Amino acid sequence: MKQIRIGLLGMGNIGTGTYKTLEMNKAHIMAGTGLDLAITRILEKDLARKRDVTVAPEQFTQEAADILEAPDIDIVIELLGGIEPATGFMLTAMQNGKHVVTANKAAVAANYDKLLNTARANRVMFRFEASVGGGIPILNALTAALIANEYEEIRGILNGTTNYILTQMAEGGLSYEQALKSAQAQGFAEADPTADVEGHDVANKLSILISLAFGKRVPPETIPTVGITGITMRDIENASAQGGKLKLIALARKKGGDIEYSVGPTFVANAHPLAGVNNEFNAIFVKGNAVGELMFYGKGAGPLPTGSAVMGDVIEIARAVAR
Amino acid sequence: MKQIRIGLLGMGNIGTGTYKTLEMNKAHIMAGTGLDLAITRILEKDLARKRDVTVAPEQFTQEAADILEAPDIDIVIELLGGIEPATGFMLTAMQNGKHVVTANKAAVAANYDKLLNTARANRVMFRFEASVGGGIPILNALTAALIANEYEEIRGILNGTTNYILTQMAEGGLSYEQALKSAQAQGFAEADPTADVEGHDVANKLSILISLAFGKRVPPETIPTVGITGITMRDIENASAQGGKLKLIALARKKGGDIEYSVGPTFVANAHPLAGVNNEFNAIFVKGNAVGELMFYGKGAGPLPTGSAVMGDVIEIARAVAR
Repeated sequence: MKQIRIGLLGMGNIGTGTYKTLEMNKAHIMAGTGLDLAITRILEKDLARKRDVTVAPEQFTQEAADILEAPDIDIVIELLGGIEPATGFMLTAMQNGKHVVTANKAAVAANYDKLLNTARANRVMFRFEASVGGGIPILNALTAALIANEYEEIRGILNGTTNYILTQMAEGGLSYEQALKSAQAQGFAEADPTADVEGHDVANKLSILISLAFGKRVPPETIPTVGITGITMRDIENASAQGGKLKLIALARKKGGDIEYSVGPTFVANAHPLAGVNNEFNAIFVKGNAVGELMFYGKGAGPLPTGSAVMGDVIEIARAVAR
Repeated sequence: MKQIRIGLLGMGNIGTGTYKTLEMNKAHIMAGTGLDLAITRILEKDLARKRDVTVAPEQFTQEAADILEAPDIDIVIELLGGIEPATGFMLTAMQNGKHVVTANKAAVAANYDKLLNTARANRVMFRFEASVGGGIPILNALTAALIANEYEEIRGILNGTTNYILTQMAEGGLSYEQALKSAQAQGFAEADPTADVEGHDVANKLSILISLAFGKRVPPETIPTVGITGITMRDIENASAQGGKLKLIALARKKGGDIEYSVGPTFVANAHPLAGVNNEFNAIFVKGNAVGELMFYGKGAGPLPTGSAVMGDVIEIARAVAR
């Protein structure tokens, strides 16, 4: 059995969840796939942090080159977040013949063409399932199982923080400020929630979905984007009185020969499957010209759901490497 | 560009939908994948039937051997339905080095090991996404994107006919007999609805899901199965009074070291995502030890949704052949 060796860039929440997903399911993965996967080196400064996993101190390094240039690393997982140095690290890894997996929507949305072209030029695989919808396998579905369809529409609740806030306002009667505080207390929102509540996080994810589903490159900063900071209880009550809910919706659809797209608070009638998606859950509604309407629902964030998506990509690559 | 040549066994509703999915999206598939796919030969007796697709009369044959033994066929799609001669045809195709795709849940559930072992022994691919959940890409998700998980539970609404009947009883106030007639009038139920309403169709699908998700072979006839023929308006009203709905649920879950499984009418609380799955729609709820709760929702039957799943499998195989 060939061992596939993995280098991990970043061991914060998501990195730890990815490590833990492999640790707890290693025997199961080996039995199911015949693959021996090992995270052998980790770029991380914070060695003191308590982590609920078993890592030998000598696995850590402070030098990216120890992973990006290591001849014994087959796959690099990038979980640093942010556009740089993450993008530069991924490009270097590819140029050194390493396959790359990332959960980094900001880096993928900002540098989509560069990353895909560099992977192609170096004949390595590049996968980023975890960058959209957390544990929901939407990118795999769009690029493999559903590939026989022309897509007509994608409509998603792609951010758990804002969906939690809107749900708490609608069902718990909380004000925006109270709901945000509750989200922060539960770990669903960061101390600085700007990227989530202003819709930038969703715009990054929609940009990636548009590239994959419609083959069109739309930089996230050019997507008309409205967040939820202006939503009042009055807006929530109006939606309820109309028989629906306010949701932060990412939309992309064919309109004539063009693609129409936006991110913003949107009225969703209660009869639509997206109306029942509450709290930190995400969902993506897809319409294809053969399959009709589909919806994928699940946890859009969190260490283990994201770890599930990252390791799914790693295993797909490892299977191809083993062949 | 290499042409991948496909033989089609059976051109009824599903065969026509598969042909049409390829016909309408051929240019799109070629642009997206670089693959030139062609259905070059079709086993079908009924040449007179009106079909909404363009088939040259010389593409039809009455002899299975013209496809199963043809050196110029790469992939065989089996859409005859029923256990035999479908299984025998698939085995012969594999023994002749052809990859096989099917939508036939009865044949896959009855001969799971034989089909998989024969494919392995002959080093060909065997895929059957369309056999469970129609257009919903659940088998791909379980065997690829989610493969890093140990599965804890699968709970599905896997039959559109019975879900339509139960929805019409609950929302339209129809009796079982009236709802069945309505389903037949709309083409959601066959003239002899036994396999659907007695739950046998669902048991076949659950058997396949258990094999893939839990690695355990449970023949469908050994799954405790209750259909919906005994459901009265009183049962529907009781469920509603308890804040939920009656759904025909296929369930498999880990319980200690074992798997617990059944098919039968089940109370689902309105808060559960499966409660909102109405009429001919299907949904599969999955719980994995990393990803948590996921749900996949879509059309579980119909010529084009099923054609989407069949062609998705064909394209995955064609990509591997082209590599």
